[in-house]
Amino acid sequence: MNYKMMGRFLSRIIAVETVFMIPALLISLWLKEWAAVQGFLAAMGISAAIGGTLALLCRKTDKRFAAKDGLVCVSLSWVILSILGCLPFWISGAIPHFVDALFETVSGFTTTGASILPEVESMEMGLLYWRSFTHWLGGMGVLVFLLAIAPGEGGKGFTMHLLRAESPGPDVGKLVPKMKQTAAILYIIYICLTVLNVVFLLLGGMSLFESVCTAFGTAGTGGFGVRNDSIAGYSPYIQNVCTVFMLLFGVNFSCYYLLLLRQFKSVWKDEELRLYLGIAVGAAVLIALDIRHLYPTLEETVRHAAFQVSTIMTTTGFATTDFDLWPSFSKGILLMLMVVGACAGSTGGGLKCARVLLLFKSLRRNIRRVLHPKKVQVIRVNDRVVDETVLDNCNAYLAAYVIIIILSFLVISLDGFSTGTNVSAVLACFNNIGPGLEAVGPTCNYGAYSVLSKLVLSVDMLAGRLEIFPILVLLSRSAWRNR
Amino acid sequence: MNYKMMGRFLSRIIAVETVFMIPALLISLWLKEWAAVQGFLAAMGISAAIGGTLALLCRKTDKRFAAKDGLVCVSLSWVILSILGCLPFWISGAIPHFVDALFETVSGFTTTGASILPEVESMEMGLLYWRSFTHWLGGMGVLVFLLAIAPGEGGKGFTMHLLRAESPGPDVGKLVPKMKQTAAILYIIYICLTVLNVVFLLLGGMSLFESVCTAFGTAGTGGFGVRNDSIAGYSPYIQNVCTVFMLLFGVNFSCYYLLLLRQFKSVWKDEELRLYLGIAVGAAVLIALDIRHLYPTLEETVRHAAFQVSTIMTTTGFATTDFDLWPSFSKGILLMLMVVGACAGSTGGGLKCARVLLLFKSLRRNIRRVLHPKKVQVIRVNDRVVDETVLDNCNAYLAAYVIIIILSFLVISLDGFSTGTNVSAVLACFNNIGPGLEAVGPTCNYGAYSVLSKLVLSVDMLAGRLEIFPILVLLSRSAWRNR
Repeated sequence: MNYKMMGRFLSRIIAVETVFMIPALLISLWLKEWAAVQGFLAAMGISAAIGGTLALLCRKTDKRFAAKDGLVCVSLSWVILSILGCLPFWISGAIPHFVDALFETVSGFTTTGASILPEVESMEMGLLYWRSFTHWLGGMGVLVFLLAIAPGEGGKGFTMHLLRAESPGPDVGKLVPKMKQTAAILYIIYICLTVLNVVFLLLGGMSLFESVCTAFGTAGTGGFGVRNDSIAGYSPYIQNVCTVFMLLFGVNFSCYYLLLLRQFKSVWKDEELRLYLGIAVGAAVLIALDIRHLYPTLEETVRHAAFQVSTIMTTTGFATTDFDLWPSFSKGILLMLMVVGACAGSTGGGLKCARVLLLFKSLRRNIRRVLHPKKVQVIRVNDRVVDETVLDNCNAYLAAYVIIIILSFLVISLDGFSTGTNVSAVLACFNNIGPGLEAVGPTCNYGAYSVLSKLVLSVDMLAGRLEIFPILVLLSRSAWRNR
Repeated sequence: MNYKMMGRFLSRIIAVETVFMIPALLISLWLKEWAAVQGFLAAMGISAAIGGTLALLCRKTDKRFAAKDGLVCVSLSWVILSILGCLPFWISGAIPHFVDALFETVSGFTTTGASILPEVESMEMGLLYWRSFTHWLGGMGVLVFLLAIAPGEGGKGFTMHLLRAESPGPDVGKLVPKMKQTAAILYIIYICLTVLNVVFLLLGGMSLFESVCTAFGTAGTGGFGVRNDSIAGYSPYIQNVCTVFMLLFGVNFSCYYLLLLRQFKSVWKDEELRLYLGIAVGAAVLIALDIRHLYPTLEETVRHAAFQVSTIMTTTGFATTDFDLWPSFSKGILLMLMVVGACAGSTGGGLKCARVLLLFKSLRRNIRRVLHPKKVQVIRVNDRVVDETVLDNCNAYLAAYVIIIILSFLVISLDGFSTGTNVSAVLACFNNIGPGLEAVGPTCNYGAYSVLSKLVLSVDMLAGRLEIFPILVLLSRSAWRNR
């Protein structure tokens, strides 16, 4: 394990986080929110001290860096980001308990959007801004950001390992040969789409502050809002803007790059994109049919159905209506969408459409293998043969996914909530969605769970965001052994 | 597709079923249950007519038989067995609706034990006997029975394909080189254990009829009882006998064969057996701690905990207490046990401990692969290297399992029951357990579900019993194409 290299990297991550606290601090200063100002200053001081010490200790490093170092580095970064990021909430007293503040911040960075707060409107605006900003930063990935701006270091292997560990999906597509440029392109697209989202929200009459915060929540597919009723109180226009932008942020970002290159045909033929949009439209239609008697007009029915499908499938977690009151079939579809999730290479979570596609294709291959045992069967996606290691990893991912969900479900059921609550809480956290059903439904929150459950769900959120293996490696003994 | 060979095989299966209806008919004759007599006579007549026609049509066959023919043959056999087997219930009027009767019979043959009957004590004894007997026949497998008694035919490949398709578990262990003898040994062990079970129940003062029916339900890990309160009304001694025998029937039968050969050491070191017993004891202890305040004495607490763990883990489905009233943690453990299931090569259902073992081991391998990418990593079970195809199949099985569970859940949620009910109903049917939680808990039944849901759950039960792929092949278009 190359500890010095890791320390140096972590010090930079901490520096990035400290710098990003400045806008929130300025907002609090401007609005004279002294408790928040105190929280931010203390958090920035502590971060600077830790980051500075690390940087001093780890000046001279050798550049060798193994795959496992990359994974451990990613997991540790996220844990440290969350711990330092929760300090403003805790020190300012806005969230009195440390574990609650940590849960809220992990939920932010992992773009889950699960909250322990019964209401948010009384919170200082600086803190609200920081809370939403964690979504934006966590959505595309802090390490990807660092790669995009930092001078290339550690060689190709290093950056590749980091990007692979932080980017969602079974297969990391490099847009251009250089990782640094890929990271930069991703962030440029991300920033442009976010700005576009803000503009559309401003056009609907939303204030600048709310527009920016809502766009952060949408872009990261996070789901923290600035109002107690999430998006329900806004105009239908705003709700529809959110529906569309959530869907857009759930698309694989390489599609946008292809669009920029005017390769419309490959975007049109992309199998994952088709599956993603197909499921979204299908689910929205089925739900609209199922809930048509609950709303007075067709427009409202379709709007709520489309919004909730978009918010759950992209794992955002905003809400315009209490879908826990919907009939079982609609809730069943939403639970299924929670598992499916958004596209690989987007800011969304879940299993990812790409994996669902691979699972279905390998299931079909298995049946064909039984029928024609002597024929060699390959799996193609977008007319290219999929490597067997990708399939292996996809299967291993599903196995780990099922095992972790079952074990987490077991631990949090100690708190005595109903089966539906516990199942949906684990699914909503692990897939980085936010609201679940029943006692953790869109009008409720996670505050009632015990400290143990909150920690388990926090680990679930991190495991879901980092796609399990980095967290498992962090927890495995042999990763820490220096061969 | 070798249709003639298949027809011939099906005619024999039907003959076996017709013959096995005779004891039930005799019981009904003896007790002058004329409605049941009528039902059995009609069912036997119809079966004989269909079986005879098939046998006549398919006299001359060629012996070539492909793997897919075996799978289709197995699935078709089970569908036909269920359709013919439900006729006595339907024709006698004991179950007025055909789909209900079919559900009950599929539930019987697949050893699920899910019932649509609100109470069973008013049913004719001949029908009750037949209902329990379907468990016994389905437990070890009708085709295995046929292999054991029929003159060897179709060659080695034929019998191997059938046994593989009907025997549960990731890997079919041949006890002896000849399949026919393996099948015979399995049935001899099965019969001896069943007789032993009957003897122990008789010693507890149970009547012969109830002892035989209860032993059928235990041996097949089915769960149909002859009393409305399942096993709750019997003495603690009887309940403990059931606990022990359910556990015994959930053990891989090859362990008993090894015991007969006095190879105690390999049984003692069997990793699946250790996992199975370890989970059972661990779950019982945790549940006992969780429910200790619900029962007056320690003995009663432990007895109920052990019984319910045994009944759920072996996928039997008897009950001595309404575990739906237990705290969430205990219910969570039971839900987990539903998924894990019994050992491969037993009469129990679920994923099987052997698969769980393989999934955990391959997860560990995946982590080690990340840490040491250049080392070749093999997976060993009982000190033998596991073939990669077995691992592939295990992963494919899990994928198919998850997909089918999610889709079934979606369809049955159309009926509007709660999420907990629907999740547990699908798990309980697919894993061949029987009772679920909430509206399908141990004191309730499946009668309230719609016809569509009952059919979906019936397919789930068949898919669970035959381990998915035969049913998927039966439903796939290309299986029916004659190349």
